[in-house]
Amino acid sequence: MLKEKLSIIKIGGNIIEDETSLAAFLKLFSNLEGNKILVHGGGKRATSVASKLGITSKMIDGRRITDAETLEVITMVYGGLVNKNIVAKLQALQVDAIGLTGADINSIKSDKRPIKEIDFGYVGDVKEITSHSIDKLIKADFTPVFCAITHDGNGQLLNTNADTIASTIGVGMSKIYDTSIYYCFELNGVLQDFSDKESVIKNIDTETYQNLLKNGMISDGMIPKLDNCFDALQNGVQKVHIGNTAMFTKENNNFTTITL
Amino acid sequence: MLKEKLSIIKIGGNIIEDETSLAAFLKLFSNLEGNKILVHGGGKRATSVASKLGITSKMIDGRRITDAETLEVITMVYGGLVNKNIVAKLQALQVDAIGLTGADINSIKSDKRPIKEIDFGYVGDVKEITSHSIDKLIKADFTPVFCAITHDGNGQLLNTNADTIASTIGVGMSKIYDTSIYYCFELNGVLQDFSDKESVIKNIDTETYQNLLKNGMISDGMIPKLDNCFDALQNGVQKVHIGNTAMFTKENNNFTTITL
Repeated sequence: MLKEKLSIIKIGGNIIEDETSLAAFLKLFSNLEGNKILVHGGGKRATSVASKLGITSKMIDGRRITDAETLEVITMVYGGLVNKNIVAKLQALQVDAIGLTGADINSIKSDKRPIKEIDFGYVGDVKEITSHSIDKLIKADFTPVFCAITHDGNGQLLNTNADTIASTIGVGMSKIYDTSIYYCFELNGVLQDFSDKESVIKNIDTETYQNLLKNGMISDGMIPKLDNCFDALQNGVQKVHIGNTAMFTKENNNFTTITL
Repeated sequence: MLKEKLSIIKIGGNIIEDETSLAAFLKLFSNLEGNKILVHGGGKRATSVASKLGITSKMIDGRRITDAETLEVITMVYGGLVNKNIVAKLQALQVDAIGLTGADINSIKSDKRPIKEIDFGYVGDVKEITSHSIDKLIKADFTPVFCAITHDGNGQLLNTNADTIASTIGVGMSKIYDTSIYYCFELNGVLQDFSDKESVIKNIDTETYQNLLKNGMISDGMIPKLDNCFDALQNGVQKVHIGNTAMFTKENNNFTTITL
């Protein structure tokens, strides 16, 4: 039997921080046909609230060290402020949104990251998703909006990378749906030439990716993102798209599509 | 056809603020049989976060004036910090909880309170609940956990009294379920003699309430609460219970039950 389609869209700080960008994106999101799930981060906002509360954000290699009070800020900002405002705005656009952390309906369980050289604190590495529970919401015609928080099943919330949440949900839901993931970021897509913002590589598959890597065409920051995409594809996701939010406008095809 | 039972339990700041009380209550809640909904406030915690952020909480007659920045704090604390920690703790107790504001699944819509003598700011007076959407969650075996936030349907979140949320959900769900509301507060129940904490009036109906009022037996603070209870009963709720969380222990019957 042909599976129904499901789109998972991940947005980051650049969209969330800016009222106008967020409003424009949510309008595009509301017009997307079919089953959909939104995943959002919200890091910069958390940093600014933390700073107002006198908490210094400690970052190592771009990753936030999440001590107990930083976790409180993240729970407030991601789970409350950002998530619930997005939900309210989607409702105004006739999208029957429901805001979730991984604790809600036990949707995403993770393990607290083990302490090695660095103690990341209350950071979770995703372990499993409860696809059938998330699917109950979709079948009920609700649109799940996930923030970047999971739980360990023992009452502990954990700060979790939003990209990983999107790919894990994608993999989990691909048992039920023909699943595509859309990663929205600042650029138009994966670029051939980083100094030329228009030099988007429109299609990448396993073979072209290997060639691009061999020729040093992929920037260091992009490699883990693309590895993560191929990992999702190898585990059941149909397609991954990378670009800015213009990829949801019908006339635009200037973004990157990744397939196996 | 006989309706299934649904219990709506409202807890306030005295339980939420104290880790031990909250853990004990959540354990009792997890053991409650049948369909259930939890409603929580969280006012004191919001006041303390607001104060750390340099925002002075303005109260008039015990009601919070909710300006834009106070609404942000409330959204962070009620919708994020308090709600998501309760959800994670319930999951650890095998309750498949889902945390909600009134914006989620458009569950509770309200009108921004009109400005008369006092401008309460972003405070909502409840207008309607979407019973069939809340019921989809219950039928999916999820346990809704509502915080005291609603929305106006146009993208605006609104701070809303948690007691009112509990009674409105009670009334709305009474079309589908045989609905009881449990209001948890510090006292054992409605007291005959305020200086004797054990002098609980176990049963109040319309007639006894009129007599108690006539004889000046009900304290001023209790009258609006009881009026609210009778209002819910007149609009379809079967029973309202008032007491402390011990009312959920099987051996205890020292609390107040209100019926028409």
